[in-house]
Amino acid sequence: MRLKPLIALCALAFTGTSFADEGMWQPHQLPELESVLKAKGLEIDAKSISKLTEFPMNAVISLGGCTASFVSPKGLVVTNHHCAYGSIQYNSTPENNILENGFLAKDSADDLPAAPGSRVYVTETVTNVTEKVIKGTEKLSAKARYDALEKNQKQLVADCEADDNYRCNVYSFHGGLEFYLIKSLEIKDVRLAYTPAMGVGKYGGDIDNWMWPRHTGDFAFYRAYVGKDGKPAEYSEDNVPFVPDSYLSVSAKGVQEGDFVMVTGYPGRTNRYRIAAEVDYVFNTSYPKARIHNTKYVSLIEENAEDGSKARIAYESTIAGYNNYIKNYGSMIESFNKGTMYERKKQFEQALTNWINNDRRLKRQYGSVLAELSSLVEQSQQHNERDRMLGYVHRSQMISTARRLYRLAYEKQKPNSERESGYQERDLPRLEAGLKRMTRRFDEGVDKAILLHFLELYAALPKQERFTEVDKAFNLQNGFDKTKHKALLDNMYAESSLNDEDTRLELAEQSFAQIKKSDDPFIQYADAIFTVMKAQEDKDKALAGKLQAARPQLMAAIIAFNKAKNKPVYADANSTLRVTYGTVGGYSPQDGLVATPFTSLEGLLAKNTDVEPFNAPEKLQKQIKAKLYGDYTGGMNTVPVNFLSNVDTTGGNSGSPTLNGKAELVGLLFDGVYESIIGDWDYNPALNRSIHVDSRYMLWVMDKVDNAQNLLDEMKIVK
Amino acid sequence: MRLKPLIALCALAFTGTSFADEGMWQPHQLPELESVLKAKGLEIDAKSISKLTEFPMNAVISLGGCTASFVSPKGLVVTNHHCAYGSIQYNSTPENNILENGFLAKDSADDLPAAPGSRVYVTETVTNVTEKVIKGTEKLSAKARYDALEKNQKQLVADCEADDNYRCNVYSFHGGLEFYLIKSLEIKDVRLAYTPAMGVGKYGGDIDNWMWPRHTGDFAFYRAYVGKDGKPAEYSEDNVPFVPDSYLSVSAKGVQEGDFVMVTGYPGRTNRYRIAAEVDYVFNTSYPKARIHNTKYVSLIEENAEDGSKARIAYESTIAGYNNYIKNYGSMIESFNKGTMYERKKQFEQALTNWINNDRRLKRQYGSVLAELSSLVEQSQQHNERDRMLGYVHRSQMISTARRLYRLAYEKQKPNSERESGYQERDLPRLEAGLKRMTRRFDEGVDKAILLHFLELYAALPKQERFTEVDKAFNLQNGFDKTKHKALLDNMYAESSLNDEDTRLELAEQSFAQIKKSDDPFIQYADAIFTVMKAQEDKDKALAGKLQAARPQLMAAIIAFNKAKNKPVYADANSTLRVTYGTVGGYSPQDGLVATPFTSLEGLLAKNTDVEPFNAPEKLQKQIKAKLYGDYTGGMNTVPVNFLSNVDTTGGNSGSPTLNGKAELVGLLFDGVYESIIGDWDYNPALNRSIHVDSRYMLWVMDKVDNAQNLLDEMKIVK
Repeated sequence: MRLKPLIALCALAFTGTSFADEGMWQPHQLPELESVLKAKGLEIDAKSISKLTEFPMNAVISLGGCTASFVSPKGLVVTNHHCAYGSIQYNSTPENNILENGFLAKDSADDLPAAPGSRVYVTETVTNVTEKVIKGTEKLSAKARYDALEKNQKQLVADCEADDNYRCNVYSFHGGLEFYLIKSLEIKDVRLAYTPAMGVGKYGGDIDNWMWPRHTGDFAFYRAYVGKDGKPAEYSEDNVPFVPDSYLSVSAKGVQEGDFVMVTGYPGRTNRYRIAAEVDYVFNTSYPKARIHNTKYVSLIEENAEDGSKARIAYESTIAGYNNYIKNYGSMIESFNKGTMYERKKQFEQALTNWINNDRRLKRQYGSVLAELSSLVEQSQQHNERDRMLGYVHRSQMISTARRLYRLAYEKQKPNSERESGYQERDLPRLEAGLKRMTRRFDEGVDKAILLHFLELYAALPKQERFTEVDKAFNLQNGFDKTKHKALLDNMYAESSLNDEDTRLELAEQSFAQIKKSDDPFIQYADAIFTVMKAQEDKDKALAGKLQAARPQLMAAIIAFNKAKNKPVYADANSTLRVTYGTVGGYSPQDGLVATPFTSLEGLLAKNTDVEPFNAPEKLQKQIKAKLYGDYTGGMNTVPVNFLSNVDTTGGNSGSPTLNGKAELVGLLFDGVYESIIGDWDYNPALNRSIHVDSRYMLWVMDKVDNAQNLLDEMKIVK
Repeated sequence: MRLKPLIALCALAFTGTSFADEGMWQPHQLPELESVLKAKGLEIDAKSISKLTEFPMNAVISLGGCTASFVSPKGLVVTNHHCAYGSIQYNSTPENNILENGFLAKDSADDLPAAPGSRVYVTETVTNVTEKVIKGTEKLSAKARYDALEKNQKQLVADCEADDNYRCNVYSFHGGLEFYLIKSLEIKDVRLAYTPAMGVGKYGGDIDNWMWPRHTGDFAFYRAYVGKDGKPAEYSEDNVPFVPDSYLSVSAKGVQEGDFVMVTGYPGRTNRYRIAAEVDYVFNTSYPKARIHNTKYVSLIEENAEDGSKARIAYESTIAGYNNYIKNYGSMIESFNKGTMYERKKQFEQALTNWINNDRRLKRQYGSVLAELSSLVEQSQQHNERDRMLGYVHRSQMISTARRLYRLAYEKQKPNSERESGYQERDLPRLEAGLKRMTRRFDEGVDKAILLHFLELYAALPKQERFTEVDKAFNLQNGFDKTKHKALLDNMYAESSLNDEDTRLELAEQSFAQIKKSDDPFIQYADAIFTVMKAQEDKDKALAGKLQAARPQLMAAIIAFNKAKNKPVYADANSTLRVTYGTVGGYSPQDGLVATPFTSLEGLLAKNTDVEPFNAPEKLQKQIKAKLYGDYTGGMNTVPVNFLSNVDTTGGNSGSPTLNGKAELVGLLFDGVYESIIGDWDYNPALNRSIHVDSRYMLWVMDKVDNAQNLLDEMKIVK
């Protein structure tokens, strides 16, 4: 599966022209693309897709981090298995292991409550609030501008959320050129209706993650519930299934190679408009270094926590996460080195500059914007090695916990609305959950070994790049000495009680005055570096304020440049609702190999070893061997399992409905191929392929393997 | 590259029908296939291919283990880079590293002598000598039969080799149903004329070995030299290039997908006619166990010889060899488990049995043959676990050296002609080379660790499966004790001087009486087990004699069965000259993936990392970037590097010319794809693909990279 979208402070940048089927379009842009869409195979009115409260867009919903869609009049929701994974795991017990074996509520009364915090968001309005956000910030700069923009947005959100059935957010587009207020109905009672066994839903597991050929049945079903009054309500037995304004029909005929498909969903974040200098830094410095340090991080865990030990089990998900990033960065670096993104960026910037310089008015308006942005980008990279190494030092769970507790006490001195994001009342449950989770995810030996390693790397920085306060706290003024510093850390860990859950939860209740008096060595460290780190944070915000002024300028220039060539420009993904369209088709991952667009039941069987993750349920294997295809072949000689298309997607799109020209659901987007990982930066028409579960496979599993006749009956199946 | 053919005592067995393009045909069979060949695209007369002394067959030669062909009137020979590897390495020095950088003799006077022992064999006659071999053996059985067959064959060889310009061998076909005497001119002065750099000839190295996509320029050129009288002679400066009766033209146009191709060469060994019981044993017991033990073997070396240490360097080629087999067995086990070979064998045996039982005469003749062979096969497997474990124990270099020296002294008591094969005068140089080689390939710690491990496994066998003599020698009567046996081995190694090269060479000169008195503990072991091992060997020969009687019977039945259906039967490969034909084309290695039949210069460049084995020479990369294709595209938009076809080949075919319908050289066979490794047992038309270097790539490298204009000038290039 894809990475969950990274929450990043900074926004967008810039790219060249828009290629065939590239683009994550805001729904309101679709009428502009009507002729292209029609030519490709869209049969419904393009204008209807631009209206959020009409079919099919009102059937597409967000789960926060994933996408889903309504597929029945009784609030039935389909999404990816990996999007519902937490809820499936939450309901699994050793006695009733639904993660392993799957689960089907034979009646909606048997639906299981989803994991706490699960939500369904139905976007109802998208309002351009650019003027209101910008108002009063025009003359401001740096941190003042940053703060003013924050304040305006907070006000808009607060006003909108006056109706507490709604969740509101302001999203910045084109790096702050436009702002939209998005208002979504927040359904709070979400339940699990059906999931296939893990040998279907996670078939291929981490081995096949990002890979083609693929045979993953990455689907599961929720059901949305509301109060008897039809309004969102917390979980209650009395709640009733939500009746959506519309829902998607599901195709049992599916698609063929060359067919038009579109995907509607909530892509998380892309960086398509970054300037060449940023791309250079990220691919030649940031990712390669992250890859090296993360690989070391994993090996430190492995060396200090023997296979099968309690310590190792505590870190398994950490290791999986790091390995996922290592694979991800590896693919991107590989693609970058093979490709021409950097050269194309340079060429584009040159063409843009020439175009600007050829017109006196344009030159006045945009003449300095690229240089200005470049200078800001350079500033932001100035201390990157220091920030990187200190960042790793501060990943020690003892340090990060101490700093979080200290900051919490500090923020709690302020009124709720003025607190830093992450420390407001709404954030406290998540914060507490984190403090509790550490109990299961921590081992002193591992944490210490990691801290010791990165302290050594930090200490190797030139003195002027280090912080006196950090040096002092860790006694690094005269350099690093492994034996001495090992002893120092041994001492700190021995004296600290942050590894105790009760202690952590008690500290979370303390006042700032109390916590400042703590004799815990890690809390003392947090105290010692607080002032200098806060000053650093303010500097970063000032730089962010400047970037928030410069990027929109550049984006305005890019939009004008493209408009002159009659080309629409899509904004970088920002977790808001988008539409992307394309065609079902394969690609050539390497000279001498072609990935064909469909996989089949027989291919799944050939891959099957009965050992996880290639352990399809026995019944599924039996039905394949019996060639019991039912009406789910769509004219093929098998039931297709997964398929490829060139739609433009990223993390956050997971679970998105894949629609045909009639807006029938023909699949669920769930991954991209290995060569498309760099797609977050650069769409390569030859290699960018998304992977979908075929609706025929989903229906076949429901019908022939899991006997989910009750769900099939409430859905509208197009045969 | 493929494995070198295994020298195995036992011969052939049986399979089902012959599929499309399956078959390694004896040249004399080709007229039978004429209509098929014509339909496929053969343009020359099929009869001409059946005549060994006519074009094109007289241009195809054996290097002993590899195939090659004449490509100029001046004795120029083309083969695979991996077939000439020894000679390239032999001529490499740190100052003039031709292995790394390549080599071109600008004039034939600059040709370099090939590695000692290099030969070119030109097959001149193939005579059916079945009657002479069988004569007098009809009434014999078991060991008597084995010995009589041996004696008859030795006589035929000796008579034929009376002219010492020739090398003669008797080959058994169809498990001993037919015998052919093959007489080949033995050219003894072979020189290296040209090799590309390793970054061309071994591009992709072990990583790409057996893999597609592939970009290996696996070609090199020898030149055959003879005395001034035109007859074979040992190396001499006065020798002159050999003038072959004919030579192959080389096509600059190459082939396209779907084109007819044929490969002529010397495939080593296949097992297509083994019975179901043998297949069952090999794939369910023998290969899986070998895989486990060989994997352990490698890890024992790695644990006991630190990376980069002198010990590790001594074992690098051993490790590579074992890993090659592990990959090979792994592929075969995988293919076997996915495939239906066993079921098809069973079905075939049933069909054959029914056919035999339906005819009284056939039933009388063949009615019991399958049962009889099955019973012999069962006998041969009876002590397989004992033979396997003792085999691993005896792989200890100290033990194997001791046993070889002891046996040498024993055999030297007899007249040369009566000695066991491997200990005759002609074998002594190779034996001595082995004794010397041990100096560079041995480490006491590693050898001891391996011996200790396998002694433990041997000791775990039931008592009745162990040999008293072995138990006594290693003090295993009361079981294995790691500490005690470690001490015992420490003592044996400390007291032995077999790790000394001079000692070994001295022992090779000793008489049997002398060596029996040796106080070296390993020689004493060899002495202690000699009688029982010799008895065991005689039992094996007796069984082999019985098999030699039974297999031909079964093969005769199979041939008759096929003849009744008008189907010709090809014999299993046995290192004799064969012809296989087929079509250029890709395949699907997995559901969702297609291997396309050609790779390209651009694909090579995309793979290139400048790190071995993906380190193409700079000039080659430059010419690709410049798209300097010359006249070597054959109408494609690039120069094709490697291509796939479904011809039926195996180890020993390496270097074979790939010919088009006009018998022009369009490529060199050099490998098979991963999924075709099981092809030695079973030809799967969907997955069996051979990999060829494209003649266009070879010519392009010679012309545009290595400036081998002098060679191109003496060759006949078809444009």
